[in-house]
Amino acid sequence: MSDAAGISFRMCPIGFVRTPYGDSSEVPKGPGAEHKAEGVLEIRPDLEPGLTDIEGFSHLIVLWAFDRSDGYDLLVTPPTGDRPHGLFATRVPRRPNPLAMTVVELLGRDGASLRVRGVDMLDSTPILDIKPYLSAIPADRIRRGWLDDAEARRGSPQGKSE
Amino acid sequence: MSDAAGISFRMCPIGFVRTPYGDSSEVPKGPGAEHKAEGVLEIRPDLEPGLTDIEGFSHLIVLWAFDRSDGYDLLVTPPTGDRPHGLFATRVPRRPNPLAMTVVELLGRDGASLRVRGVDMLDSTPILDIKPYLSAIPADRIRRGWLDDAEARRGSPQGKSE
Repeated sequence: MSDAAGISFRMCPIGFVRTPYGDSSEVPKGPGAEHKAEGVLEIRPDLEPGLTDIEGFSHLIVLWAFDRSDGYDLLVTPPTGDRPHGLFATRVPRRPNPLAMTVVELLGRDGASLRVRGVDMLDSTPILDIKPYLSAIPADRIRRGWLDDAEARRGSPQGKSE
Repeated sequence: MSDAAGISFRMCPIGFVRTPYGDSSEVPKGPGAEHKAEGVLEIRPDLEPGLTDIEGFSHLIVLWAFDRSDGYDLLVTPPTGDRPHGLFATRVPRRPNPLAMTVVELLGRDGASLRVRGVDMLDSTPILDIKPYLSAIPADRIRRGWLDDAEARRGSPQGKSE
């Protein structure tokens, strides 16, 4: 493996997201959590031409930063689980790189602002990138490891859109 | 909108990916491109405990860096298109933050190495994060804007897994 010591990448916000959530305790979590909340992706005005034709896509991938998260543990017990799992087998916020991904539904665009449904970020969270959502793995081909097991033990619903 | 001037995030590789592609011209692109190539996610040995229980997931989201990409244009004509679109309505490598996302199928794990199918990165590309792929938007709810239009004009197939 190459030496990772010297390599790093500096990422700056392309904008910020407006959401109803001021505190992480307000964001729905765990089995059956539904993310129906509406929000606005406020993109930097200088980048507005980069949004040209984005209205044609029904869903967007938003890459954003866990900016209120610090450090990480390699083994974690997430809200959905009842025992520790490797952090890369979870979506916990405390990660070696504070990267998060959310798929949102695009409701409309007003200049450099995108109205979306399905936000699960805190208000004022920095956005790092937006990409069109193009296709998906068919649901019957997805296995979800410990999460399926944990949900089966709790009798919780699964298969929510994400 | 908050002032973005002072905010930035430094991201370091959690590992590197081994793929058959030494040059971007070798990576399948455009309408109907299929990513069936196998590769290996070589995660840093110190992070290996973070992979605990990852074997239970059939698909993984790999976030990685376009490390051989520089600068960006707000309007771009991607391989699949025949006219310019906003960069955020495309997946071109030259972006304000050089972030990329690929969904891969997990074939097996050997310590800190994950054998996967579906790589579309160049060999030795830095990996920034791995997350479990949990669910997907049903195919009949996805609209793909200019990409559907461009493919319809070319009579090309669509709906590949991604």
